[in-house]
Amino acid sequence: MERTCLAIILAAGESTRMKSAMSKVLHPIAGRPMIAHVVDALASASISDVALVVGRDAEAVTAAAAHGAATVTSFLQKDRLGTAHAVLAARQAIENGYDDLLVVFGDTPLITAAPLVAARERLAEGNDVVVIGFQTAEPSGYGRLIIEDGELLAIREHKDASEEERRITYCNGGLMAIDGRKALDLLGRIGNGNAKGEYYLTDLVEIVRSLGGRAIAVEAPEEELTGCNTRAELASIERLWQQRRRHELMLAGVSMIAPETVFLSWDTELAQDVLVEPNVVFGPGVCVESGAVIHAFSYVEGAHIGAGALVGPFARLRPGADLGPKSKVGNFCEVKKSEIGAGAKVNHLTYIGDAFVGAGSNIGAGTITCNYDGVNKHVTRIGENAFIGSNTALVAPVTIGDRALVGGGSVITEDVPADAVAFGRARQEVKPGRAPVLRERYEAEKAARKKAKAAE
Amino acid sequence: MERTCLAIILAAGESTRMKSAMSKVLHPIAGRPMIAHVVDALASASISDVALVVGRDAEAVTAAAAHGAATVTSFLQKDRLGTAHAVLAARQAIENGYDDLLVVFGDTPLITAAPLVAARERLAEGNDVVVIGFQTAEPSGYGRLIIEDGELLAIREHKDASEEERRITYCNGGLMAIDGRKALDLLGRIGNGNAKGEYYLTDLVEIVRSLGGRAIAVEAPEEELTGCNTRAELASIERLWQQRRRHELMLAGVSMIAPETVFLSWDTELAQDVLVEPNVVFGPGVCVESGAVIHAFSYVEGAHIGAGALVGPFARLRPGADLGPKSKVGNFCEVKKSEIGAGAKVNHLTYIGDAFVGAGSNIGAGTITCNYDGVNKHVTRIGENAFIGSNTALVAPVTIGDRALVGGGSVITEDVPADAVAFGRARQEVKPGRAPVLRERYEAEKAARKKAKAAE
Amino acid sequence: MERTCLAIILAAGESTRMKSAMSKVLHPIAGRPMIAHVVDALASASISDVALVVGRDAEAVTAAAAHGAATVTSFLQKDRLGTAHAVLAARQAIENGYDDLLVVFGDTPLITAAPLVAARERLAEGNDVVVIGFQTAEPSGYGRLIIEDGELLAIREHKDASEEERRITYCNGGLMAIDGRKALDLLGRIGNGNAKGEYYLTDLVEIVRSLGGRAIAVEAPEEELTGCNTRAELASIERLWQQRRRHELMLAGVSMIAPETVFLSWDTELAQDVLVEPNVVFGPGVCVESGAVIHAFSYVEGAHIGAGALVGPFARLRPGADLGPKSKVGNFCEVKKSEIGAGAKVNHLTYIGDAFVGAGSNIGAGTITCNYDGVNKHVTRIGENAFIGSNTALVAPVTIGDRALVGGGSVITEDVPADAVAFGRARQEVKPGRAPVLRERYEAEKAARKKAKAAE
Repeated sequence: MERTCLAIILAAGESTRMKSAMSKVLHPIAGRPMIAHVVDALASASISDVALVVGRDAEAVTAAAAHGAATVTSFLQKDRLGTAHAVLAARQAIENGYDDLLVVFGDTPLITAAPLVAARERLAEGNDVVVIGFQTAEPSGYGRLIIEDGELLAIREHKDASEEERRITYCNGGLMAIDGRKALDLLGRIGNGNAKGEYYLTDLVEIVRSLGGRAIAVEAPEEELTGCNTRAELASIERLWQQRRRHELMLAGVSMIAPETVFLSWDTELAQDVLVEPNVVFGPGVCVESGAVIHAFSYVEGAHIGAGALVGPFARLRPGADLGPKSKVGNFCEVKKSEIGAGAKVNHLTYIGDAFVGAGSNIGAGTITCNYDGVNKHVTRIGENAFIGSNTALVAPVTIGDRALVGGGSVITEDVPADAVAFGRARQEVKPGRAPVLRERYEAEKAARKKAKAAE
Repeated sequence: MERTCLAIILAAGESTRMKSAMSKVLHPIAGRPMIAHVVDALASASISDVALVVGRDAEAVTAAAAHGAATVTSFLQKDRLGTAHAVLAARQAIENGYDDLLVVFGDTPLITAAPLVAARERLAEGNDVVVIGFQTAEPSGYGRLIIEDGELLAIREHKDASEEERRITYCNGGLMAIDGRKALDLLGRIGNGNAKGEYYLTDLVEIVRSLGGRAIAVEAPEEELTGCNTRAELASIERLWQQRRRHELMLAGVSMIAPETVFLSWDTELAQDVLVEPNVVFGPGVCVESGAVIHAFSYVEGAHIGAGALVGPFARLRPGADLGPKSKVGNFCEVKKSEIGAGAKVNHLTYIGDAFVGAGSNIGAGTITCNYDGVNKHVTRIGENAFIGSNTALVAPVTIGDRALVGGGSVITEDVPADAVAFGRARQEVKPGRAPVLRERYEAEKAARKKAKAAE
Repeated sequence: MERTCLAIILAAGESTRMKSAMSKVLHPIAGRPMIAHVVDALASASISDVALVVGRDAEAVTAAAAHGAATVTSFLQKDRLGTAHAVLAARQAIENGYDDLLVVFGDTPLITAAPLVAARERLAEGNDVVVIGFQTAEPSGYGRLIIEDGELLAIREHKDASEEERRITYCNGGLMAIDGRKALDLLGRIGNGNAKGEYYLTDLVEIVRSLGGRAIAVEAPEEELTGCNTRAELASIERLWQQRRRHELMLAGVSMIAPETVFLSWDTELAQDVLVEPNVVFGPGVCVESGAVIHAFSYVEGAHIGAGALVGPFARLRPGADLGPKSKVGNFCEVKKSEIGAGAKVNHLTYIGDAFVGAGSNIGAGTITCNYDGVNKHVTRIGENAFIGSNTALVAPVTIGDRALVGGGSVITEDVPADAVAFGRARQEVKPGRAPVLRERYEAEKAARKKAKAAE
């Protein structure tokens, strides 16, 4: 489309019903602020000029919106005098002159490019105002779209609608495209002669018709127009987003045993033939290659998982975890900012942080890389095909050579050369027959305590 | 309301279809026995005199009901001859004389105060019998409420209903309010001249009308009248309870990414701006303050979580865990009967039991407080801004002073003064070139085993 | 039923829309290949002769189907020329002569015995062809069953159906029973004079009627006929399977707080009065006895859990875990190929592998059985009523006697006799006043690093 377009995002609401310390458009959906989803939808509809009308948390909202996909200019709406008043907060941007003006909301993050593109196409065909509507089974409360011969005659608010009009199921979604050359004139004609004394964008329909212009509606799926006023609605938008994305991934060849228990981030990448078991949470920045299995109860963020790798159950991969092909990170293991080489195994109860684990190495149960001294983080380097015995502490900085063996229960503080055996454990002492004596003593202590307590 | 009221809870059923070792009213919903929810609903309707009709597990049922919210007197129903017979098991209590009699069930734990209050108000207006009914899309099987001019003419059992009556969607919920002064007379008139030879409370409607009295119905939401006969219904009541409570919390400003995966207890308190990630289980006795984040896969019971604290993922907080503001308990950590000071960090693979961790202290990965000697529990005290190196065993009773440093991999059996450094680890030994020798030996053992096995 | 029967399973599809490296019939439902569920349904309908028509992944599909419940012979379908052509790939088996021929699909794993038995009974009554149909609220796209006076006149494809026929909600499920003596003749009459040039089994209805024979339909629940073409449908079949099985278990006396979060395998056995908390995954081979509690976030496979045992939260039981009555395996514990004696406790952060833990023993937090030397697995034997202190490494092969006490933080490499006390830990050293010195040094290092980085 060669026509120019300015999108105005209305994001100045007080978010009162969210009962939140921050503006609702900052609340995340799929791990990123709601407003960023809206900007992305605009970008994917090839709209790159965005005027953002902000109020509460203006700075944070601007920052969240300006994430690279579009050029965002903010305009502060000081008073809240209705949607048309909000749009005019961006008057300066509108005055730059655009073919199309598109008004969207900061709190409808499920919108996609399709209806935005469709609305602009209808402008290009010569319509002056295009309202984005939706069909719904439960229209009560919404403004109804009064259509005749394809023309939109009016948007009738529920409270003003006749019995017959209330049976209309085609409703106003709020989003609107306006002829950019006429927009300022049209917007200027909206009055506030109503109960609340506010300026309503919906008045445009009748205004444009009274001037001999033409208004129409285009339909978007109801889901895409879901707005967010409470945390319950926030959760419901999240659910719709997740359902949509899970479905896409499954159709692309990802297996999910119980998709409703898999939580994705906006940027989660899962390749074909990845299997995700129930109850897996993906934070941002995850890429999983083909044939990998993410077992149940895994929490993965900022991680790359190589082809055929096995993760979990009960694995935590934190940012910077990079798992090689066919490697394995098992139950109650945490990996942070570390490379796990191809085929290496970190099977149980282990913390690997700031480390390199070479291909084919085996890290025993209960191994801890002691990477932090309270001030600095230090690196542990483990070579290829090394074997770290269970319950070992590797005190970083430390290097274990290729094929080295570390005995179970060791504290390793110095480098271990390739092919060496290392251990660091105290000599075991055994006191035969001593257990009953100790137990007797413990029991006596217990009895004494009880007595003392009773005497209190 | 100044009228006196006796509530009779029918809880004598055999619970056969539950296939359970205990009475169904003892089965928990949101972590407490079903019957306790019913008593709570009565108490929140300002009804404090309760007659409990028990049969199976009489003692346990009485104990579960008498949890403080009301005065509960138990009456044993020996034979099971119908609902009216069950009510008359409490004849002695009824004879004490009350303005209102309210009959409820021990297995409808979702009932709230509203319909109970409404029913009593209608008694106060001069009605003799008030039936609590519900509108349903699937009335099949339920007794239909035959209403004319606001009066309840009869409760028609499904099997006796005409084709036309079966289209009625207003059904009998079973709960009933009765004029307390007339109750014994009315109940005494109920006969058992029916197929099963039982005494049905529902007969009261026609009896009271035949005496020139007046019966009416008040409506409760269908959900509130859900009864429990099988474990599938138990699960379904639990689901409804959870949905109701999650919704309340979200409207009050709690964020839940996937509310359907958050399981609350009857007394869970979550403050505004708490964020709960997917898959979190709250046992009884939890209070979470504002700004705290409960990450996915956390299991929290009997714990207090301070403002801005971070919990999980994969955290287990057990009774007596008390997390200070901005403290952190991370993955694969268990905290029991311990205070974690403000800003202190227990990040990974750690067990903190019977301990005090001072503000700002950092507990390394794999730290274990060895609090039990097989007989007694002992206390570990860690000062402020101390640093416990990873994979350390703190053998209680033991005290670590403020700002002390404990080296990773240590076993600490004696007190460490403030500002001291302590460690307890064996000297590391390294045997260069020894790994291939050991591996060869292991391989030979493996081969020998295989051979032995083949020879079997 | 004394009539003989051959079941033909069509399983030769390309599974293109699954976007998978393997045939769709190999994808698991409830932990076993889809095709195995179909064979099981046949077996439970007492059908033991199975002809399997395979194409893609022929060997693997045959292996998955031949799991013991029936005698399975495979036939390769080289070209894909329609369902009738697929059935005739098994001509050799049909020629063996059977009273009944039953055609089923490899990708409808929810089918049960009931409709298969019903179809065969209708053959026995003298019908020639029996189509298995289903009632659906959304018939669009399905072939409609045109029934008159109980006879099936035709299967009308959606695209060929009249407006009136499209209102029919009784649809073709695809499965079909055919008189075995007439089958080859009837099948031979099917032509390919249609748009795609394929041979359709559904033509049999009109063919048999044209020969004066009789076709009828029997109804199966829609759910049982759900087919699988995409991974989204795979997930949906899994969900239906899980719902069905959970419901059965609940009705049999198993409590599930949130059944929709409990994932069962095809062979999971849960006794009456077992309680399963939310978020539990059962892999294959699990048997749980009465009164056991499986707490949230547990992952259990190949394990036997004795009466009254407590598992989890956050427990991983792997194949060969055998938990005695009233034993306990708690949070962040993994048990593999080990017996846990009656009343023994493995409460926290522990790995027990290749071990025997005697009755009444207590395994402290952070205990690791070091069972692997990189080549061989070794056994740990712990007697009865022994006490293993926390954070202990038991280096197998090793034996701890009855009632022995092992001190916390020990590395145990040699056997400990009964009643002995053993420990193996280094002497603790304390350097008073040393912590501030160290911290200062660490801070200097940090500053130096920063400086170096800034200089880069």
